[in-house]
Amino acid sequence: MTITNLFGKKIIICDGAMGTMMQKYGLKAGELPESLNITHPEIIRGIHKEYFDAGSDFVSTNTFGANAYKLKGSGYTVDQIVNQAVKLAKEAALDTVSQGEKYVALDVAPIGRLLEPVGDLTFEEAYGMFREQIVAGTKAGADFILFETFTDISELKAGILAAKENCELPVFASVTFQEDGRMLMGSDPLTAVNIIQDLGIDALGVNCSLGPKQMVKLIKEFLKYSKLPVLVQPNAGLPVSVNGETIYDVDFAEYTEAMLEMLQAGVAVAGGCCGTTPAYIEELVSRIKQISDQYGADKIRDPEKTPFPALASDAEERRAEKAITAVSSATKTVILDDRIRIIGERINPTGKKLLKEALKSGDFAYIENEAINQVRAGAEILDINVGLPEIDEQEMMRKAIRKVSSVVQVPLQIDSADEAVIETAVRLYQGKPIINSVNGKKEVMEAIFPIVKKYGTCVIALTLDEKGLPKNTQERLDIAERIIKTAATYGIGKERILVDCLTLTVSAQQSAGKDTLEAIRQVKSRFGVKTTLGASNVSFGLPERKLLNRTFLAMALEAGLDAPITDPTIEEYTDTIRAFETLSGKDIESKDYIVFYGNKSTGSGTQSSGMVPSGSNGNGTKADAGENGTKAGFSLSALTL
Amino acid sequence: MTITNLFGKKIIICDGAMGTMMQKYGLKAGELPESLNITHPEIIRGIHKEYFDAGSDFVSTNTFGANAYKLKGSGYTVDQIVNQAVKLAKEAALDTVSQGEKYVALDVAPIGRLLEPVGDLTFEEAYGMFREQIVAGTKAGADFILFETFTDISELKAGILAAKENCELPVFASVTFQEDGRMLMGSDPLTAVNIIQDLGIDALGVNCSLGPKQMVKLIKEFLKYSKLPVLVQPNAGLPVSVNGETIYDVDFAEYTEAMLEMLQAGVAVAGGCCGTTPAYIEELVSRIKQISDQYGADKIRDPEKTPFPALASDAEERRAEKAITAVSSATKTVILDDRIRIIGERINPTGKKLLKEALKSGDFAYIENEAINQVRAGAEILDINVGLPEIDEQEMMRKAIRKVSSVVQVPLQIDSADEAVIETAVRLYQGKPIINSVNGKKEVMEAIFPIVKKYGTCVIALTLDEKGLPKNTQERLDIAERIIKTAATYGIGKERILVDCLTLTVSAQQSAGKDTLEAIRQVKSRFGVKTTLGASNVSFGLPERKLLNRTFLAMALEAGLDAPITDPTIEEYTDTIRAFETLSGKDIESKDYIVFYGNKSTGSGTQSSGMVPSGSNGNGTKADAGENGTKAGFSLSALTL
Ligand SMILES: [Zn+2]
Ligand SMILES: [Zn+2]
Ligand SMILES: [Zn+2]
Repeated sequence: MTITNLFGKKIIICDGAMGTMMQKYGLKAGELPESLNITHPEIIRGIHKEYFDAGSDFVSTNTFGANAYKLKGSGYTVDQIVNQAVKLAKEAALDTVSQGEKYVALDVAPIGRLLEPVGDLTFEEAYGMFREQIVAGTKAGADFILFETFTDISELKAGILAAKENCELPVFASVTFQEDGRMLMGSDPLTAVNIIQDLGIDALGVNCSLGPKQMVKLIKEFLKYSKLPVLVQPNAGLPVSVNGETIYDVDFAEYTEAMLEMLQAGVAVAGGCCGTTPAYIEELVSRIKQISDQYGADKIRDPEKTPFPALASDAEERRAEKAITAVSSATKTVILDDRIRIIGERINPTGKKLLKEALKSGDFAYIENEAINQVRAGAEILDINVGLPEIDEQEMMRKAIRKVSSVVQVPLQIDSADEAVIETAVRLYQGKPIINSVNGKKEVMEAIFPIVKKYGTCVIALTLDEKGLPKNTQERLDIAERIIKTAATYGIGKERILVDCLTLTVSAQQSAGKDTLEAIRQVKSRFGVKTTLGASNVSFGLPERKLLNRTFLAMALEAGLDAPITDPTIEEYTDTIRAFETLSGKDIESKDYIVFYGNKSTGSGTQSSGMVPSGSNGNGTKADAGENGTKAGFSLSALTL
Repeated sequence: MTITNLFGKKIIICDGAMGTMMQKYGLKAGELPESLNITHPEIIRGIHKEYFDAGSDFVSTNTFGANAYKLKGSGYTVDQIVNQAVKLAKEAALDTVSQGEKYVALDVAPIGRLLEPVGDLTFEEAYGMFREQIVAGTKAGADFILFETFTDISELKAGILAAKENCELPVFASVTFQEDGRMLMGSDPLTAVNIIQDLGIDALGVNCSLGPKQMVKLIKEFLKYSKLPVLVQPNAGLPVSVNGETIYDVDFAEYTEAMLEMLQAGVAVAGGCCGTTPAYIEELVSRIKQISDQYGADKIRDPEKTPFPALASDAEERRAEKAITAVSSATKTVILDDRIRIIGERINPTGKKLLKEALKSGDFAYIENEAINQVRAGAEILDINVGLPEIDEQEMMRKAIRKVSSVVQVPLQIDSADEAVIETAVRLYQGKPIINSVNGKKEVMEAIFPIVKKYGTCVIALTLDEKGLPKNTQERLDIAERIIKTAATYGIGKERILVDCLTLTVSAQQSAGKDTLEAIRQVKSRFGVKTTLGASNVSFGLPERKLLNRTFLAMALEAGLDAPITDPTIEEYTDTIRAFETLSGKDIESKDYIVFYGNKSTGSGTQSSGMVPSGSNGNGTKADAGENGTKAGFSLSALTL
């Protein structure tokens, strides 16, 4: 039985601190903690046994720093340390006096060197070191992988990919926040959850970071967005020096109280980090047992009455219902809630002579400028397409993503006809991007869906297939349904699909506009998916294209378009979107509208360029989701300009 | 049994010419034809008997000119002539050798003097003379009233009102066209049908005018739009002089052939006019009998097989299905088909200082100019509101209608809070106007619906009632349903109702826009009615109102708005409507769009003023209806500028 079978059956109890326990048992300052696996196996085995005896369902191996970088010069190999560490934990599991099945988590922590672009460690170097550790742990017989104390989601992603690609074990992933509620690289809880949860892991959560009380708010954010069971391992408060000894300022009563609050909010996996000891775990286990006994085996699963929602009979369904459509950069998440989200289309060389030249000459300042201008004008997601026959698209895409990410915070949409370029880009990208695109062709779905699955991305589904462009509304619906159903067979939820009902040119096929709008309406109501649309095609070949485009945009928004792919620097379009949001009641109390237009003369028709605090301030009806989705989303002042 | 009971049971056979028969029997040139009723009763009785013997179900009394104007100085009173004429026809009916029930129609023809504004006869003078004739005919025992050979719909309307208000008899109304397919005052067949058919009559049709062959096309137009049984009485071709005798150039074989074609197209009442004789009627009756006998009594009612659709078992339902929403001036009809029809709102003093001053000083040039400018800019219907506390609204409305009608051809919408003003206006108006408005208040419905019914108008139904403004979509739907159902109790079909779902101000109540759009969508799908909307309220209190209004307009059109009430001189709005029509496929092949914008530079955003052949060229999907509805509608060149 794997540990994941315990979900819904019991609160899974982790161990507490390893580092502070080792200090207690004699680890000296400056000494490599992992060396104790070899030099003092009885200490490590003993600590594990203490936790198992206290009631931990699993312990984490003493392998926090067991990677090639940290072990360099230690005289030990990764394989050697990991093998021994797993062995000790397994021995402790056999030796415990406590009841129930016991598990060993291979503990994997950050390499200890910052990744590019902040540091100099490449994604693939990190991946390689994680792989080494994971392969060793798997070989040694670890039951699952626990990534913990990660401060950079990108590094965690390298680790998770290394796990998913090199072993079959379950994966738990836990990250660490600073006091300001952000991870070291700036990710907020929503962004962390959104990026991690679709990477194929089994549980996610927060460890270390803060004391239990301060952890409550973070964990509630996690619980709000996580489709997966949530893990929490707080520190026992802050370290204080008492009589030369470092102790932590939260005792186990206070710790237990906060832990129970988080369990009552829905946490499924609970333990401790720095400063916590077997006594903390024992107290926690005892209180959980006491409460569970009070309720009894049947009532504990009653969704209405259980003190532990993670044990409710419908816990999994409830988590699944939290599925939101959201895209993230490393530091900012845009939720496709009921607000309109503009996907900026200008970084695409098709028909753009200047951008073509910039790409050919490697003029990234031009591309950065396009990114900045689009975000200033209201884009909340940027499409990146650098496909030109004359250039190395893969290399260009890599650079473009890095350059654009360095000047704007908005999430990106990776746009290429070449699936190798797409995979390179989404692997490297420090967020949860949209892939543009998949369509109904069998071959294309077989190429794209594995990438969407592995990297946990969103994807645009174009309603065309082997038979070509759709002829009417029904063909659009049929193709959309086929794509959504096929995605499901890969384990890709419909919340990660944005259906593009394809606008063709009305001058060529007059029913095209009407068919598309009807398809948008029906795709939304039948399949419950979000929609996107590159709407400017509609006017091709006709005069006054902006007039047609802005009118079609209003019609499409009214029909239910969520995320138009458009040029936000054209005021007619962003004006239309802002007006639509006010008129449709999405822009509550017209706040954004008034902020944007309030100081302008009525009827002037033109507007000064400048800050765009509107259009994206997530005061949607899902108030909380919106709030969070745009907290970072709208701080244009935070742009690195 | 009244004659209307024959509909669906048999083709009703009229008589043929009276005038040419009287000449044959000795009426001299210059002699008053109606005097023969007194001086030679045997001749008149004899002609009637000849027609009855030939198989006519009814004959028309010899009262074509029996009105006070024409009888002036003749020595006879209207009462005297009419009484004698009816008596003679009734005697002939009793004397006939032919089978079946025989009826006497009181023949009523134009007064012989043109009505205002072309002539000097007032509407009420005409009404008074018709009343005198009708009261006399009713008293004398006529079975129904036949208005025939009318060339001015306004005069016919005076006659029909006189009949409906002074007797209980059935009314048939027949008009006369010139060779150009228009009546003397310019009405085309659609306009004639549209204005007449809701005045409470029982049958309508065409007489005199042309020979039978040329009549076919006209009659098919009538059959296309008429909800009532259609009557046809063509001339026997053109008069030619042979050996000093006037004869007609179409013999009864040719006549019968054309009559059968029209009967096969659905005509229900058939006879002849100038030049036709009892022999024509006999031949027609014989051929109808021959064909009917071939089919047999059961098959003749089979909708799929009958040679005479007027006899099909579902004839009445089929006619009812033709109900279209259409408004007319005297010369032009606008069908609310799937094209968007702009109702120009500028002639309304609310908030318009210059118009207020013009009304106070009686400056009709200003009002005429507003009308011309709106039509030039694309309005197809004009709202007329002249309500100001300081002026005689009734008198001002009368003048405004006349002045506006003298410079533009478009149908008018009569807008007043005073039902006396409304009744005065629609009584006088030479067309089928829209009344603006009724609402869900019991008192208002009881005041307005009798006017709508009597004058056969369309009406705007505002979704508000005793409880005030609607709070949400459901309240709008409930009120709309109540108004539609109440209208039905008056015999007012839903095709004459334009529901206005009322846009409130989003700055005051944010759900207002959304609720209105949802109501439009549902009102259309549930009740199958057309919709109108004065959309500029929506932006009240917010900056950049034109932006909000144009965006809301596009959203409302997408939701199903048919006839926006707006200011067509604001290009943002008409631009949006033209774009919408192209994008939604209503403007087939974008023809109107290209005509309007084709010669303008792309993206200029501005446009020269000028002719507006677009937006209203009825190339809707109901191609024929559209074609006809706008034939006059768009000939701005025909404007009397
Ligand atoms: Zn810690
Ligand atoms: Zn005639
Ligand atoms: Zn006649």
